[in-house]
Amino acid sequence: MRGVGAVSEPEVTYRLPAAQVASVLDRVRERAPLVHCLTNIVVAGFTANVLLAAGASPAMVENDQESAEFAAIADTVLVNLGTLSAERARAMRAAAGSARTAGTPWVLDPVAVGALAFRTTLAAELLQLRPAVVRANPSEVISLAGATGGGRGVDSTAESAAAVPAARDLAGRLGTVVAVSGAVDYITDGQQVLAVHTGHPLMTRVTGVGCALGSLVAACCAVEDSALVAAAAATAVLTVAAEVAAVGCAGPGSFAVALLDALYGLDERTLSAHLDRP
Amino acid sequence: MRGVGAVSEPEVTYRLPAAQVASVLDRVRERAPLVHCLTNIVVAGFTANVLLAAGASPAMVENDQESAEFAAIADTVLVNLGTLSAERARAMRAAAGSARTAGTPWVLDPVAVGALAFRTTLAAELLQLRPAVVRANPSEVISLAGATGGGRGVDSTAESAAAVPAARDLAGRLGTVVAVSGAVDYITDGQQVLAVHTGHPLMTRVTGVGCALGSLVAACCAVEDSALVAAAAATAVLTVAAEVAAVGCAGPGSFAVALLDALYGLDERTLSAHLDRP
Amino acid sequence: MRGVGAVSEPEVTYRLPAAQVASVLDRVRERAPLVHCLTNIVVAGFTANVLLAAGASPAMVENDQESAEFAAIADTVLVNLGTLSAERARAMRAAAGSARTAGTPWVLDPVAVGALAFRTTLAAELLQLRPAVVRANPSEVISLAGATGGGRGVDSTAESAAAVPAARDLAGRLGTVVAVSGAVDYITDGQQVLAVHTGHPLMTRVTGVGCALGSLVAACCAVEDSALVAAAAATAVLTVAAEVAAVGCAGPGSFAVALLDALYGLDERTLSAHLDRP
Repeated sequence: MRGVGAVSEPEVTYRLPAAQVASVLDRVRERAPLVHCLTNIVVAGFTANVLLAAGASPAMVENDQESAEFAAIADTVLVNLGTLSAERARAMRAAAGSARTAGTPWVLDPVAVGALAFRTTLAAELLQLRPAVVRANPSEVISLAGATGGGRGVDSTAESAAAVPAARDLAGRLGTVVAVSGAVDYITDGQQVLAVHTGHPLMTRVTGVGCALGSLVAACCAVEDSALVAAAAATAVLTVAAEVAAVGCAGPGSFAVALLDALYGLDERTLSAHLDRP
Repeated sequence: MRGVGAVSEPEVTYRLPAAQVASVLDRVRERAPLVHCLTNIVVAGFTANVLLAAGASPAMVENDQESAEFAAIADTVLVNLGTLSAERARAMRAAAGSARTAGTPWVLDPVAVGALAFRTTLAAELLQLRPAVVRANPSEVISLAGATGGGRGVDSTAESAAAVPAARDLAGRLGTVVAVSGAVDYITDGQQVLAVHTGHPLMTRVTGVGCALGSLVAACCAVEDSALVAAAAATAVLTVAAEVAAVGCAGPGSFAVALLDALYGLDERTLSAHLDRP
Repeated sequence: MRGVGAVSEPEVTYRLPAAQVASVLDRVRERAPLVHCLTNIVVAGFTANVLLAAGASPAMVENDQESAEFAAIADTVLVNLGTLSAERARAMRAAAGSARTAGTPWVLDPVAVGALAFRTTLAAELLQLRPAVVRANPSEVISLAGATGGGRGVDSTAESAAAVPAARDLAGRLGTVVAVSGAVDYITDGQQVLAVHTGHPLMTRVTGVGCALGSLVAACCAVEDSALVAAAAATAVLTVAAEVAAVGCAGPGSFAVALLDALYGLDERTLSAHLDRP
């Protein structure tokens, strides 16, 4: 159990206190932002449940006739490349373009990019539409930055710290925030790098925890102007809930259930107990 | 905890006793109707689990080459517009048409209709194919009836009672039953209006509870000739199970699990304890 | 609670001891095979969670532009016909073809074959691409073998024992292994027939348990050269976990959660206690 804060890596320059995380979460609960999710068939249900547990309003609209229209109504948009199809790709381009035009923040989760040509090309295109945040695993970040990652489908074979230079470069060049998931999460806008140390290994034994984090980042972007703060707050919220959920769990089945309960009941005192350790 | 029965609104004219609800549920368990679901990627798994817990046999076939063929085999059909695609839209038209020809009851759940043009047009088309029941939230009902709802994606910003006149009008004009979901559920055939007062706020924090209700209405239509009774019985079954499930729950994760357990174990005594209060 | 072993039917000729089952499971956990799943929208999440709980690495890629490329990277491939679409059918043909070329084992789960023409034709085509294992219910096996099954969507109306002759014939003709699911599971390569007697009726009240078994068979094929042993070991693992999970369950909701926990914690001692009874 570790706090959001400075780690030994020199590039970590900023610390997000529990009070600020709690403030973002409170705003999600008060405003219940409508989160337009274009995501995949594996995690769609769990993503919706994570958003509902956190107080947001998920809605999945993923066809190319409605996605632009709906992105303009929504408070924030998530584009997750998981189970891509030709129609979903068209819907994603349209939704991201519509969000950009409307000034609505949107988040890109480039699942398995680098490993497969079709989605790698699509991700490069989408990056030009200026996502507020790119949420990815280390291999995906390294791949997006143009280097060679160790991607193996949806898993990552690279450590998150190793992807920080690529994340920083990518964020700086594109004017976005990059959130790298791992045992330690790093979030950077190209200048500052935040580290979030909370979390639990069982998060990797439940499908869609990373994808759900992407959706939570999108929800936080709807209520917090700084995408850097929004992404770090979302990461802190989910990883603290994971630490709460893991207590007394018999395995990944009960952990996933407890994670939703923990998100629903999360308060500033608990956030502080997990995040504000020295 | 409130019973199915008369409320203060003058238009509520009919009362469904627990014994009648239990009789419908018993028939679902005995006959295990094959429920052909054309539904969305978010709730497909949960819908299937709700149907299995209640004793029905779900099967999802949603491509345009098989849906008409399968609708003719099934005992009942659910058409849920959630994550619509061009292919799903074709499959839905074919399935609803096939169900109509075969005299098989089918249920329409017009998710997010009113908010988006493509599905609003499709819903209007599908209504001409005479669904036995339309299961919707208040905004969707108001939108279908031609008035202006307050739809915001899948959530409803209107109170269910406010949609009763629209529901009644719609049901009367189309010769169908309209079930309006909310803190109080109203079910009408244009003449009679039933109210179901059972339920729990956690139902709104789990994705797909409303969609699963649509599937349960379809299952009940397979074993009960009166679509009004079938829709009210399905609503009573799910909302009483929700009240049972909510006891001792830590949040929406454990509530969703307990809801399936409660459905599985629901008996007439429990239904009576929750429904037959004065 | 019954062990993997000889039953009264004369054709059961082989017995898989718990130590061999545990050895296959250990290898899955050590190597974490990348399982490329082309499956359906109902069970995709549960399938991924079953694979993660067992120690494998699931990845769902189901579009026709990426599936062949990804099948060549993966350690094993699952093709499940559940919610077929035209695009998924193309992706499945490409993935199975690519797996065959690469010498990668792949598993066919021909959901609802026999009941519907489109998928029956596709299944016949796919069988020519030499799956390592066909995992199916009795009606589907009988239908694939050319006889007339009693298929009714995804459920089976035939007893598993009744499908053993068809399974044996099919396996022998195609040089594959056929695993027939039921209260007793039979696995055959055309010569030998193994029976797995473990399991629990609640497995039929949770959606996707059979489909998840197909994915687990695929995972085991990646670490065990004998497809017969791999399929029987996967079946034993899942059905013993089901027996463990069913203890103290209130219904199908808590059973599904406990099943994932049980898979995660399964060890040789537990396998032995359930499988090695005389």
